[in-house]
Amino acid sequence: MERERIVKGLTSGIVVPEGLLAHGRGEALDYLLGEETTPVAMEAIKAAAALLLLSRRPVISVNGNAAALVGEELVRLSRELGAPLEVNLFYRSADRIRRIKEHLLSLGAEEVLTAEEDLVEVPGLESARRLVSRRGIYSADTVLVMMEDGDRTEKLVAMGKKVIAVDLNPLSRTARAATITIVDNVTRCIPLLRERVAEMRRLSREELDSIVRGFDNQRNLRESIALISKRLARLSGYEEPLSD
Amino acid sequence: MERERIVKGLTSGIVVPEGLLAHGRGEALDYLLGEETTPVAMEAIKAAAALLLLSRRPVISVNGNAAALVGEELVRLSRELGAPLEVNLFYRSADRIRRIKEHLLSLGAEEVLTAEEDLVEVPGLESARRLVSRRGIYSADTVLVMMEDGDRTEKLVAMGKKVIAVDLNPLSRTARAATITIVDNVTRCIPLLRERVAEMRRLSREELDSIVRGFDNQRNLRESIALISKRLARLSGYEEPLSD
Repeated sequence: MERERIVKGLTSGIVVPEGLLAHGRGEALDYLLGEETTPVAMEAIKAAAALLLLSRRPVISVNGNAAALVGEELVRLSRELGAPLEVNLFYRSADRIRRIKEHLLSLGAEEVLTAEEDLVEVPGLESARRLVSRRGIYSADTVLVMMEDGDRTEKLVAMGKKVIAVDLNPLSRTARAATITIVDNVTRCIPLLRERVAEMRRLSREELDSIVRGFDNQRNLRESIALISKRLARLSGYEEPLSD
Repeated sequence: MERERIVKGLTSGIVVPEGLLAHGRGEALDYLLGEETTPVAMEAIKAAAALLLLSRRPVISVNGNAAALVGEELVRLSRELGAPLEVNLFYRSADRIRRIKEHLLSLGAEEVLTAEEDLVEVPGLESARRLVSRRGIYSADTVLVMMEDGDRTEKLVAMGKKVIAVDLNPLSRTARAATITIVDNVTRCIPLLRERVAEMRRLSREELDSIVRGFDNQRNLRESIALISKRLARLSGYEEPLSD
């Protein structure tokens, strides 16, 4: 079903061919993780929910793959948080930005920002991802990104922002540069993140703060890598049924 | 460069969107292998060269991704072996078969078979990959496949054929069903395979046979899996520089 959505996204001009390559990379890593949300990822989701609840101006950055795969879930998360969605693309074109914005609005989004309206640049970034909205990512204290490139994550952190990244590659620069990295498939983790936000809303700022401070991203990443390594070690003995 | 070739293949109608997803999966696995031909893969390449030299009617099966990525190298291997190329597609269309055939001919291929000319079916196979040429894959004693689905590999083996598979996923059904599996990127391994064929041509049938019989595919696959597992275990300590 995921594959159908992403291929349909290509046909409708939301996804670029490079997005299909990126999705395939994610598929392979998800396969190695066992195609399930690991307890290690659940820890990161919990910390991310706490950080989002503590943030004054959280913004959800949406690219083509994210819109195609989990557009509806991102709209629901945006409503739950009262946080705007902002379309931000590596392979940027006015046409694609318009299509993605319309897609999100058709799914019920209340506010979809794009850099077109009040363009400002992320300092030190060369790719088109530098172009952001002043009211959105530029003035956010926390940015949720998914399937992101390492450059922008590093520059957003350098701007003093907290970055929550969803990335199936625990070795990527994004994974290592982010404040909190969720090593999981977006289709599984965005609904889980929304549920945690709804549940944890009743917690005090002190309790939320304690959850965030208790989370060690580098250790969490090492645990995800170790999970894959151990799974492969086990599989090298062919103890489990495998499929293509 | 690989990404450019595969995206160009999509534009020119040789590659389908699903091929980009498959290529992305391969990229991730190649990344975990360290993007180099491992000593374990070199063993498989040597055994594959020996088996090809021993075969009476080897055939090289070519799909869209293979044509886009290593069309020229496959033509060279075909000439070195005196083995025909046969276009065989999972997402089959007359137009795509024609385009791939023309692409291979433009690269200097002497003979490009397609099922159109003398169609016959691989027994028990449901996908369009069942449609093969009687003079080609159907009557081959050894078939070289790359980026293949598990079903066809199993059915070709069930027909009594030897199958040499190039597959970056050492856990796939193709990898496990094939006679010899080369866990490597096609862009690296096809030239290496051609070189080995040229070098080993001077060996006697007894020597070649001894190389093939000395090769244990299941053990070789376990070693590839173990290599990735160990590499990840090492990387989980961040001892090496990493990139996206």
